Parts: sequence; structure tokens; C-alpha cells
Amino acid sequence: MSERGLLIVLSGPSGVGKGTVRKALFESEGSSYEYSISMTTRQMRTGEVEGVDYFFRSKEEFEGLIDSGKMLEYAEYVNNYYGTPLDYVNQTLDEGKDVFLEIEVQGAMKVKEKMPDGVFIFLTPPDFTELKSRIVNRGTDDMSVIEERMKVARAEIEMMSHYDYAVVNDEVPLAVERIQKIIASEHCRVMRVIDTYEKMLKEF
Amino acid sequence: MSERGLLIVLSGPSGVGKGTVRKALFESEGSSYEYSISMTTRQMRTGEVEGVDYFFRSKEEFEGLIDSGKMLEYAEYVNNYYGTPLDYVNQTLDEGKDVFLEIEVQGAMKVKEKMPDGVFIFLTPPDFTELKSRIVNRGTDDMSVIEERMKVARAEIEMMSHYDYAVVNDEVPLAVERIQKIIASEHCRVMRVIDTYEKMLKEF
Repeated sequence: MSERGLLIVLSGPSGVGKGTVRKALFESEGSSYEYSISMTTRQMRTGEVEGVDYFFRSKEEFEGLIDSGKMLEYAEYVNNYYGTPLDYVNQTLDEGKDVFLEIEVQGAMKVKEKMPDGVFIFLTPPDFTELKSRIVNRGTDDMSVIEERMKVARAEIEMMSHYDYAVVNDEVPLAVERIQKIIASEHCRVMRVIDTYEKMLKEF
Repeated sequence: MSERGLLIVLSGPSGVGKGTVRKALFESEGSSYEYSISMTTRQMRTGEVEGVDYFFRSKEEFEGLIDSGKMLEYAEYVNNYYGTPLDYVNQTLDEGKDVFLEIEVQGAMKVKEKMPDGVFIFLTPPDFTELKSRIVNRGTDDMSVIEERMKVARAEIEMMSHYDYAVVNDEVPLAVERIQKIIASEHCRVMRVIDTYEKMLKEF
């Protein structure tokens, strides 16, 4: 049955391994997701290709897209914009392809405002004790610095409540498998297929 | 992480193959669901075991459970009651075990009223055209009978909107695989694990 693709958003606290899991997912057998191509205002580098590495746009164009609500999310970094163009994502979804976004927690929440029917997956550390000892032993004895880092980590983990799924990144292949199962079952969700069935019922 | 088990309800229109899929699911590798044991008022037969085949109860006891809202669902058949006792299901879920119910559409809707956080899976026929030709060619030319059967089939399929997932029963092993993935990803749903994480965060 043909239906619209899924927008899959993978996020989670910094250092949890989002990039590694995303890479393993794309390299895994049978994966067929479109990786969302970002838009940027920075200069194209030698070897980079428009529409492959990035959509390269002028600052004016980018700001025009922001003003007209055409960016799913964006951030400014070293005087340049980086972001996800809404039209590209929508077109790809309309072609029935799943679009995959790997993104920081702040960006993910912006995406959720614009596309609440996306599948929001929060990658979590396997073990809070280990996360804590990593923070405590990061080469400083200053308690106030440690406390600040703990606060940030806590705040990031508390963002989980805004997500649909929590996937533990204990081992990368296991995390990948969980995400694949989530995507497969999201395709079975009644709210996503009911229109197709109702069309079929009319002809029944 | 220890959490409450899932109540999984498999239902769908008559003749779609619920029993076959449920049997294949229970025989499949790595499946570890508790099949919900029904309660009945009929006489125990030779070889049957209390608490294994059924919970055998008197008509008075059964009616008492109905009156006090202790039956998840029930039906009367040949002067005897059959149903799913709520306490047994709740105890098993509290032990962290998933409970599996395979049930008719009417019963499933009653279960949903009492336990809306269950996972409701609707098994669908692979093809409406085939379903239609089966109905039309069931050995009668009486158009009113055919129309009535079509109406029933349509009404049953329209119940799908009350479910969480629609699983196509095109091939039994594929349907089983889809259900297994749904159960695995439902265990990752934030609403089901958030309490555990919040407890961990307090000790963090």
C-alpha cells in the first residue's frame, strides 16, 4: 500500500553516540531511508556537490526561508546558517520515502513543532552511573563545574518526555535493530494507513 | 530496566486468521508472552487443569465478578460464560510479563475501555477484492444475503480506526514478524519507560 513516508528524528544528549548509530543504521542491510540534506550559507568547498553535501544558498535566501517558515529547524554557527529545508523534506515524504534526521535536542524540538506526526526517537546512555563517573572524572576537581555539567546532563535527559521512543545505546547493533523495528512498526500504525484502507473500502 | 508488561490484543474481522497467527507467534523463537487464561462456568472436562486450560468458576461467582467490574470482557455461549479475568491480567502485567489476548472485535473494544494503554493490533485481509469474491461466491445468488455479508465485513473493517496498528495477514510468518516488531518497539515507548528513567535521574 502506498502511503506518505515517515519523518524519523534521532536525537539525544550530547556524547550519547547519535552519529555512530545513524551511520551504522544507514550501512545496515535493508535500510532505505533518505538522509535529510542540510542547507547552509557557508562557501562550497572543493569536491562538494550542490544537493548532495548541502544545498548552498546565500545568506539573504536563507533568511528569506526562515522568515517564511520554510526551515524545519536551523542554527547559526561561525557566522553561517545551517538548517533543514522544509520543502525538500515534504517532497521526499510525498514520494513515499522515509526521511531520517539526526539532530541535537534543541533542533529536534523545533522539528516537532512543525511536524508533530514525525517519529521522535531519543537515544539514551545505557547507564547513568557511568555517565556520572565520566562527568565527575573529566579532569577537574571543581565541584561547581561538575555540578553544572550534571545539571546540563539532567536537563538533556529530561527532554526525553517529549519523544515517542527511548532507545538505549548499550551496543550500537542493538540500538540499530531497535530503531529498525520502531520504523517498521510505525508504518503499521492505523493513523498512517487508515486513509488508504478507507479508499479501498469505498470500492469494496 | 524492569517495567510493567504490555497487554497485547490481537483482533480483526472473522475469518482473517487470528488463531493461526497467534499460534505461529507463540511457537516462534524468542517469544515470551503469557497467553491470557480465560475463565468459564462450564464443567471441567477430563484432562483439563484448573488455572491452565481455564479458571473454572460457578455461575454465581462469575456473575459477581461481572457486577464488580472484574471481567476485562466476557460473552455468554450455550448457557455458559467465558471471559478474561481482570485481576489475573493485572497480576501478570505487574510481574513484568507481556499478556497476549486473541479476541473478537466486540470483546477487544470492551478491553480497550478498561485498559486503554494496551497495544491494540488489527489483523487485516491482504486484499479486499479477494474478500469480496469470497463473500459473493459463497454458494448463494441471493443479492440481499450478499449485501448483508458485505455490510458486516465493511463494519468489521471500519473498526480498525479504534486500533493502534493494522497488520496485513498476507503470509503468516510476515504477519508474525510485524507483530513481534510492534511489541519490541512498544517496549521502547517513552510513556512506558519514563517512570523508570525519572527514578534513575533522582539518584543521578
